[in-house]
Amino acid sequence: MHIQNVILGKEKFDLVIKNVSIVNVYTKEVYESEIGIVNGLIGHVNQPDDDSLEGIAYFDGKGMYAIPGLIDTHIHIESTMMTPTNLSNAIIPRGTTTLACDPHEIANVLGVEGVKYMVEASESIPLSVFTLLPSCVPSVENIETAGAEFYAEDISKMFEYERVIGLGEVMDFQGVINNAQRMNDILDVSKKYNGFIQGHAPGLTGRELSAYQAAGPNSDHEASFADEARYKLRAGMTLECRESSIVHDMPVLMPVIKELNYPENTTLCTDDKEPDDLMLEGHIDHVIRTGISLGGDPVELIKMATLNASKLIKMDDRGALAAGKKADVVLVSNLEEFQVKDVFISGEHVASNGKMINESVGKELKVESLNTVKLSKIESDTCFKIASNKDSIVTNVITYNPDMHIVTTCEEERIPVNNGYANISQRDDLSTLSVFERHGRTNNHQTAFVKNFKIKEGAIASTVSHDCHNLVVIGKNTDDMKVAANILISCGGGIVCVKNGEIIALVELPIAGLMSSDPIEVMAKSTNKLKEGIRSLGIDSVSPIIQVAAFSLPVIPHVRLTDKGLVDVIKQEIIPIIVE
Amino acid sequence: MHIQNVILGKEKFDLVIKNVSIVNVYTKEVYESEIGIVNGLIGHVNQPDDDSLEGIAYFDGKGMYAIPGLIDTHIHIESTMMTPTNLSNAIIPRGTTTLACDPHEIANVLGVEGVKYMVEASESIPLSVFTLLPSCVPSVENIETAGAEFYAEDISKMFEYERVIGLGEVMDFQGVINNAQRMNDILDVSKKYNGFIQGHAPGLTGRELSAYQAAGPNSDHEASFADEARYKLRAGMTLECRESSIVHDMPVLMPVIKELNYPENTTLCTDDKEPDDLMLEGHIDHVIRTGISLGGDPVELIKMATLNASKLIKMDDRGALAAGKKADVVLVSNLEEFQVKDVFISGEHVASNGKMINESVGKELKVESLNTVKLSKIESDTCFKIASNKDSIVTNVITYNPDMHIVTTCEEERIPVNNGYANISQRDDLSTLSVFERHGRTNNHQTAFVKNFKIKEGAIASTVSHDCHNLVVIGKNTDDMKVAANILISCGGGIVCVKNGEIIALVELPIAGLMSSDPIEVMAKSTNKLKEGIRSLGIDSVSPIIQVAAFSLPVIPHVRLTDKGLVDVIKQEIIPIIVE
Repeated sequence: MHIQNVILGKEKFDLVIKNVSIVNVYTKEVYESEIGIVNGLIGHVNQPDDDSLEGIAYFDGKGMYAIPGLIDTHIHIESTMMTPTNLSNAIIPRGTTTLACDPHEIANVLGVEGVKYMVEASESIPLSVFTLLPSCVPSVENIETAGAEFYAEDISKMFEYERVIGLGEVMDFQGVINNAQRMNDILDVSKKYNGFIQGHAPGLTGRELSAYQAAGPNSDHEASFADEARYKLRAGMTLECRESSIVHDMPVLMPVIKELNYPENTTLCTDDKEPDDLMLEGHIDHVIRTGISLGGDPVELIKMATLNASKLIKMDDRGALAAGKKADVVLVSNLEEFQVKDVFISGEHVASNGKMINESVGKELKVESLNTVKLSKIESDTCFKIASNKDSIVTNVITYNPDMHIVTTCEEERIPVNNGYANISQRDDLSTLSVFERHGRTNNHQTAFVKNFKIKEGAIASTVSHDCHNLVVIGKNTDDMKVAANILISCGGGIVCVKNGEIIALVELPIAGLMSSDPIEVMAKSTNKLKEGIRSLGIDSVSPIIQVAAFSLPVIPHVRLTDKGLVDVIKQEIIPIIVE
Repeated sequence: MHIQNVILGKEKFDLVIKNVSIVNVYTKEVYESEIGIVNGLIGHVNQPDDDSLEGIAYFDGKGMYAIPGLIDTHIHIESTMMTPTNLSNAIIPRGTTTLACDPHEIANVLGVEGVKYMVEASESIPLSVFTLLPSCVPSVENIETAGAEFYAEDISKMFEYERVIGLGEVMDFQGVINNAQRMNDILDVSKKYNGFIQGHAPGLTGRELSAYQAAGPNSDHEASFADEARYKLRAGMTLECRESSIVHDMPVLMPVIKELNYPENTTLCTDDKEPDDLMLEGHIDHVIRTGISLGGDPVELIKMATLNASKLIKMDDRGALAAGKKADVVLVSNLEEFQVKDVFISGEHVASNGKMINESVGKELKVESLNTVKLSKIESDTCFKIASNKDSIVTNVITYNPDMHIVTTCEEERIPVNNGYANISQRDDLSTLSVFERHGRTNNHQTAFVKNFKIKEGAIASTVSHDCHNLVVIGKNTDDMKVAANILISCGGGIVCVKNGEIIALVELPIAGLMSSDPIEVMAKSTNKLKEGIRSLGIDSVSPIIQVAAFSLPVIPHVRLTDKGLVDVIKQEIIPIIVE
């Protein structure tokens, strides 16, 4: 059958969505319409005065507004802790139909196999999951041990996978502007594929921004200041406006976007969004509601999340309600409250009133049963201690400033030594941090002290620890640290809180130590309990998971502990833990 | 050298354009700026408060406005009658730096060789000439003889040529919406290359437009009515707003575009522009001035001809003044009068005050010396006559309505026969039209009468005769017709006016019978003289060349003469010349 016959009215449409107002993202008009769907595509969208469409089936959208399926241009699925299938079940009812995701978390654990897994795991699900290849694995070279390193030849090979549409956030912006060979080669290879090259340029403006942009990346989701956002928009970078679990940029960005009258180089994204926040707030629909609450125009915000997004990711088969496009149609209650009611994907009615009509069931893939926490049970707590044969030592400690969230500084502290180990039992302000390489490559482990991190008792361990996802453990006593670490070693990864030798909260993440095969209802509940657990140990944070997961992230100033040692982030050098 | 070092200020820019106001096509702002150029690319564009840039050389653009190089998204170079090199010399000083051209005129004469010639002839010239492959050669199947026919396999082969970026205007919209095999196959092949598929959909709205659009084409340059334009914009087709030598759409389109607040699916184009008009009026700069004179916003019009255009043709290496883009920069006097003063291509100063600084010289290519008028000298005028052994005949005549420009109707007329030939010497309202197949394929020739075409004396002949470009001759006396035809046969093609056996005006077009290797100064003069010549024979038309070139065009209602006979355009059938 030729769809032209249906469109011309010689045969009936498969489905006609009637009685809706459509949001036209080209002209920014809203008018009453009907949408005729054939073979999973939009066949025709009525304009005022067009004749009614005839369908084999009808859907009455009375009182609702039809918009194109929402697109998230920058998301790490691993941060949702769910498999692509469960994420699909979770966010389709929120109106999201397409993701451009960068699987760089799993890539740091499982390398090419991890990327391949994400591609395979997102096959044959209603959500369109496109892959941007992880460009910086690991985030920085030589100062920590990841499960893999990606070079240009790896990137080139992975471009042949299905639904790969470009290169993921090019985080090593210092490498790019200073002509690091690894980044030059990866960018050169990627440009050949003519795909989207996604940027990551926190704080970059002026000549540095231009140097970065001229190398290829043309978007950014890291603008957190009004001047920075304005600069990037004028420079022609596409602002991927972010509302994640951790970072809330819309209050800063919305006024700039309004001031510049909604430039077309703007999209919406969620970056890292945890399951409980997804369940409570929503996904891109939440970003749109946030924009509306900040005085943004709903039609412009919808355009950002659809037409603008499709252009950025170079997928012009979607992003608008227009003939020939994929029939991803979302019906919302109204444009002020913006509650998603019904969702159609490729013309099929897949979700209604916040629920999937039929949930997708994931196929089991080999990667899901791999144990990626390649550590033996820890028999003694000595590996959580700093040994010395002196009476006391001076050590570099990682110091938190309560006003600076996850930014740290480095201070020297003199610590007494008892029975051969540095003893911090008299120091309420200090706790112990250990990092274990868990990819079976070096068996490195490192221990250092942390100041002003407000854990009062117990221990927390996590195999989610950006970007290499080694096992991090922080605690006030080394017995609890040992228990916490061993729990994750035995369950294949996750995040756990321990107090007095007992589990307070545990999120098991057996897939690469990052994800679970549980659905959102389970994940939201356990994540929520985990956050309460972490807070109950004294850590007063709105984002307690990232607080733990960032101990080892050697791109956040000023000092971090990796499996290779204490890292001076600015100098990108290992510095001694014991100074004297 | 890495351009990053220059951009960061470690080395000097090759050139800095200073003291300009730039038109920012992303934010639609205008502000003072400097543009740093390195390796032919824009390295940095200053924003307010940025430090001054250091260059090896400087250009002082005092008082001028810098805009990106202008892009024509739909042009047939053959209609300019010039080679790509001479066209480059002619329009770069007008600010045009990029063309998306459809060489379907030469394709109808020389087939694949013609397309290849246009690609080769536009190599190594400063103007960026991108090719959209001719999709409909000939425009309609089976009712005339072209020099070639293109099928999917030809299209597929030509996609491998350099600078081919898509499929040219898909004129056979009836074929597309009715699933003609030729068009289905060509569209299927073209979609694989992920390029631009250019539409041509005169008058199409509603379900027919959707049927066409769903097949692939996503633009249109044929909208001539406000309702039609509004419909297409809402449907998501990109309107390529046209000001050609023949058709002036801006007065209709500008109000619609303003009403819809300048949707981003709009570009500018010239389609068919003759050399004298190019010389007198300009090129895309003229379309912009026309828009401004109609109350259009200059910044929005500039954006249409740059950023919007680059997105339509999928060339995101240009279309804006932004880091990493090709340094095609145009300086204009101001935004109201919009006079182009200086032009930089890939950072080189190539034109100033309406003149090239160094004119490009075309290389000689084999195709240019081919004789494509494959006809022997016509010895007798009998081929311009309709023979009969009756006393009189009834013939179908092609009838002009003076109010309808080139649209015709069909009428039956009884004509007396003298000495074996129909004789119209007593009929001031009739003239004779002959068409000769000139591609050496059939040797067909046809003669019919034309009513109300106001040629009072002499004859006109042309090898420019859309779309097959056979030799057409129209005249009041068959002796002049013979002279006119023989002149073109002996010079290898062109357009000629003859009166009393003498040439009044002749434009020689030896390249495919369509183009000359003469520069614009020569071509503008001879074309102008030709138009005067045609008018001196009684033809009162603002576009006399197309008036002649359209006699044989079997897609313009209602009746045309091709080398195969009289064509009923609506039915796409040959009808008899002699009825009884």
